[in-house]
Amino acid sequence: MKNRLYFDVSRNDTATKKELFEKIKDEKNAIGYYNLPDQDISSLLAYAASFDNDIEYIVVLGIGGSSLGAKAIYEFLKPRNGNKRKLVFFESTDPVSISYITAQIDISKSHFLVISKSGTTIETIAVFKYIYSLQSDPGYYTFITDKDSPLEKFARGINAKVFHIPSNVGGRFSALSAVGLLPLALCGIDIKALLDGAGQIKESFFHDGYIRDILLDKALFYAKHHTVYHINCIFAYSETLKYFCEWYVQLWGESLGKKQRHSSFNVGLTPVGLIGPKDQHSFLQLLMEGTRDKSATFIKIEDFKDPLIISNISLQHLESLDVINNIEFHKLINMQCDATFEALKMQEGIPLDEISIQAVDEHSIGELVYYYELLTSLVGRLIDVDTYNQPSVELGKTILKDKLEKSKAYSLSFNKQLK
Amino acid sequence: MKNRLYFDVSRNDTATKKELFEKIKDEKNAIGYYNLPDQDISSLLAYAASFDNDIEYIVVLGIGGSSLGAKAIYEFLKPRNGNKRKLVFFESTDPVSISYITAQIDISKSHFLVISKSGTTIETIAVFKYIYSLQSDPGYYTFITDKDSPLEKFARGINAKVFHIPSNVGGRFSALSAVGLLPLALCGIDIKALLDGAGQIKESFFHDGYIRDILLDKALFYAKHHTVYHINCIFAYSETLKYFCEWYVQLWGESLGKKQRHSSFNVGLTPVGLIGPKDQHSFLQLLMEGTRDKSATFIKIEDFKDPLIISNISLQHLESLDVINNIEFHKLINMQCDATFEALKMQEGIPLDEISIQAVDEHSIGELVYYYELLTSLVGRLIDVDTYNQPSVELGKTILKDKLEKSKAYSLSFNKQLK
Repeated sequence: MKNRLYFDVSRNDTATKKELFEKIKDEKNAIGYYNLPDQDISSLLAYAASFDNDIEYIVVLGIGGSSLGAKAIYEFLKPRNGNKRKLVFFESTDPVSISYITAQIDISKSHFLVISKSGTTIETIAVFKYIYSLQSDPGYYTFITDKDSPLEKFARGINAKVFHIPSNVGGRFSALSAVGLLPLALCGIDIKALLDGAGQIKESFFHDGYIRDILLDKALFYAKHHTVYHINCIFAYSETLKYFCEWYVQLWGESLGKKQRHSSFNVGLTPVGLIGPKDQHSFLQLLMEGTRDKSATFIKIEDFKDPLIISNISLQHLESLDVINNIEFHKLINMQCDATFEALKMQEGIPLDEISIQAVDEHSIGELVYYYELLTSLVGRLIDVDTYNQPSVELGKTILKDKLEKSKAYSLSFNKQLK
Repeated sequence: MKNRLYFDVSRNDTATKKELFEKIKDEKNAIGYYNLPDQDISSLLAYAASFDNDIEYIVVLGIGGSSLGAKAIYEFLKPRNGNKRKLVFFESTDPVSISYITAQIDISKSHFLVISKSGTTIETIAVFKYIYSLQSDPGYYTFITDKDSPLEKFARGINAKVFHIPSNVGGRFSALSAVGLLPLALCGIDIKALLDGAGQIKESFFHDGYIRDILLDKALFYAKHHTVYHINCIFAYSETLKYFCEWYVQLWGESLGKKQRHSSFNVGLTPVGLIGPKDQHSFLQLLMEGTRDKSATFIKIEDFKDPLIISNISLQHLESLDVINNIEFHKLINMQCDATFEALKMQEGIPLDEISIQAVDEHSIGELVYYYELLTSLVGRLIDVDTYNQPSVELGKTILKDKLEKSKAYSLSFNKQLK
């Protein structure tokens, strides 16, 4: 992975950068995700290897941090993953979607992963109750949850297999824990290569490799200018990175959208995920000519390892487009990336940087995941927020619980009246 | 469709609103999308009816405005559309994605719609050349393009069927033209009901129905405060509206992200599409506690017409969640929508409104499409931009063309040297 910054980096921040690095080194002792690349995955691999070949669908019941990481990585690799098991996600209470997904799978050839850090996520338990009413054999289920959560206790009660999420790993930072690794391993993805990729960025950052200064400079720039450039776009040139963008939106938005620790200010950096060349025909106009409140990070894939070529056909009346004949598609898409980048560089007030990853493989996506986790931690530190909590999502849950209880009380009293 | 605004609407804007309405009435004579609900669709319907039952895949080659509208509507209705023809999209030059999609379809059972307003969209022609090299029988293709475009001339040359995009209908406003209607009709979607839904909003707006004042008030609020609330979120409570959000992002971003006509200011409203309840576990924290630069429109579906119920199962250790037992999923998801909305209402500085549509059907999505097109036109007028152009996407295209020509010249001279 390479990362090149095209905005002005101050040369006077050496002390700030040093201090920031020391703080992150301290954080590494308390916050669990930093060390996930070094975890022992033998029990996960052994469990995955024990699965019957008849299982065709790995079905995740999870939402937010319990689904976005595995989905991002799986969808990136899917076109390259051959005809292995399919990974399917129930991540909504939308009945239309639940019915549709249920119709797409064959329950008898499925294994269900029920994933919830707290163990009491309402969406996940609601779908689980529905699926469990269709198939109550505990052998069809594996649970991934915090140690001693109510969900673990339930799972133990029915003698089902349980994996833990380390208690110091938050949901949106859990892609490289069992939450992401187990579904991926079950679908034939090389989770060792994935962790190796992440580990390479970890090593490079913490042991003075090339990425340390780049990440510190980038974080410092984003933090310094966070009230100006408070929309951060990823512009990724591959359809395969679509769900990576969704994962990034949660990571960035939920980590950095907070009240500051030492003030009452509402701060936050708004993430936007774009896919090229498609979004050249959508968001690009706004990026080029709209308000100067956006930075953009271009992500490109160095080598798609795909020989697909634009056929050497001259179409009558469309001869002006013969210029693309015989060009590989992977060359065209990267030229489109470069051309858009250059067009943006010619504008004032749009901080740009470019990341290139090597290939559509596990190592590359592992690097990208860990890079973005680190960047989030660094910026969170600098803008003085608690990167790892999400206090404001509780209020809606409390209101919902209240609504549910009132509705239940009403329907109970209604049923009583009927009797 | 209902729409309720929860922000303060000024009572002193009667004159401004009247003037705005008159301007839009004038615009209606020049800008084509306004009148699409009234078009004659008999030739589209007859053409769709002429298709063989053996055709299983309708394959769109198009990008941006040539794909997002049909995709938004198709994906909304898909779970309800039964086992009819599948609609598939090639909307990238990503070779991994092109190879993957090609492997998913059976070309002999496919019909290809090549859609490009200008007729020279590089992504679309690139993919077309590839597909055409696999199947060159003109009977497999229908072309949708501007009258007399190079693509039309090519199509006439091979005796293929052509439909036109009215010249005064822009790409991102073309969902209800042949661009959207033909692929949808070919997949069994009731395009008459779709246009009826759009027509109902049109009628209500232009003939003093309930929606006129709401739309004028909303547009005026967004425009007045566009430098403060310059991120506009849709928070739609159904997975089926995911691609509607992508369509909205193009419509809103590309129409409103501009230099003002009568100043040199860069202005723009940044669109963000969110899906509930999933994004309660992602973007919600940022919306609740982040910078006060965002408005949010909640969209809910009144009646999912889906009887799916959360099973009446009490899980040991999870008894606190028995409160959801026996509740319909459609009731739960709408309660989640209401609870999140109420939690946001309790915050300062987040302008909210709520749209409810009746059902997962053609009429409802037709209403929603036309509503958002109108809102875009209104806000564009007020913030003094040309809503219907996209001048800044040309620069990247020019740079790309230059790169392609250089690369061609290089490879030609390289080949010459080899000889």
